[in-house]
Amino acid sequence: MKIDEQHNAALAKVAEMVGDAKFAMLTTLEKDGTLRSRPMATMQLDGDGNLWFFTSQSSPKIVEAKPDQQVNLAFMRTDKQDYLSISGAAELVHDREKMQDLWSPWVKPWFPKGLDDPDLALLKVSIMEAEYWDAPG
Amino acid sequence: MKIDEQHNAALAKVAEMVGDAKFAMLTTLEKDGTLRSRPMATMQLDGDGNLWFFTSQSSPKIVEAKPDQQVNLAFMRTDKQDYLSISGAAELVHDREKMQDLWSPWVKPWFPKGLDDPDLALLKVSIMEAEYWDAPG
Repeated sequence: MKIDEQHNAALAKVAEMVGDAKFAMLTTLEKDGTLRSRPMATMQLDGDGNLWFFTSQSSPKIVEAKPDQQVNLAFMRTDKQDYLSISGAAELVHDREKMQDLWSPWVKPWFPKGLDDPDLALLKVSIMEAEYWDAPG
Repeated sequence: MKIDEQHNAALAKVAEMVGDAKFAMLTTLEKDGTLRSRPMATMQLDGDGNLWFFTSQSSPKIVEAKPDQQVNLAFMRTDKQDYLSISGAAELVHDREKMQDLWSPWVKPWFPKGLDDPDLALLKVSIMEAEYWDAPG
């Protein structure tokens, strides 16, 4: 995973949590009005406050064709009892070079066909708001 | 019947995850269209498929006055890499007896005034759908 240098000081805590927790639960609003979440492996927090994930662009659809779909990313470090909520806008990105750049063997169990899979795409989440909680007392 | 059996089978796994993970991230759709999440301590999974939490009924409002607000509960066991998404309908419940029944000293750090806090309420989430992932491979 790549954690780039953050220009925004507020994102320092996000960088620490994301680097440590690695997996997030991504929640989306479905067409039927329900909220669903699924685990996602974080590949990068770039210097512009975007989080990058690999995803399958076919079913189940995470992100619709419309731009700026609202999503939530929940990171937890259960051993430390700290929790991070990120509200952001998601979009599918088809960028072969970026995919090669972010590819890592440890995500292969989820995407066994690797970079040759035509269904493989990137999900980019632009962070709009981040909230953080740690263990009380 | 068939649907009930599926429901029960799902709840067995839910019961195992919830009992182990204890904390969930509760995601709600805000009025401005964003999705926000916050950590919640699970107090009970009852026999009717409802999850119970303590909450503050004042700001920040989690659940609006309207009934059946859609929410998502994400449970993670990061050490085992397993993940649970629960889609459900949430409502605020004011039930003094139920609150006394569910109260535990380990939630006191979050609600220091305890049962005497007039702001304390119960959040009941009726499970509508549960999805489960474990570590691949």
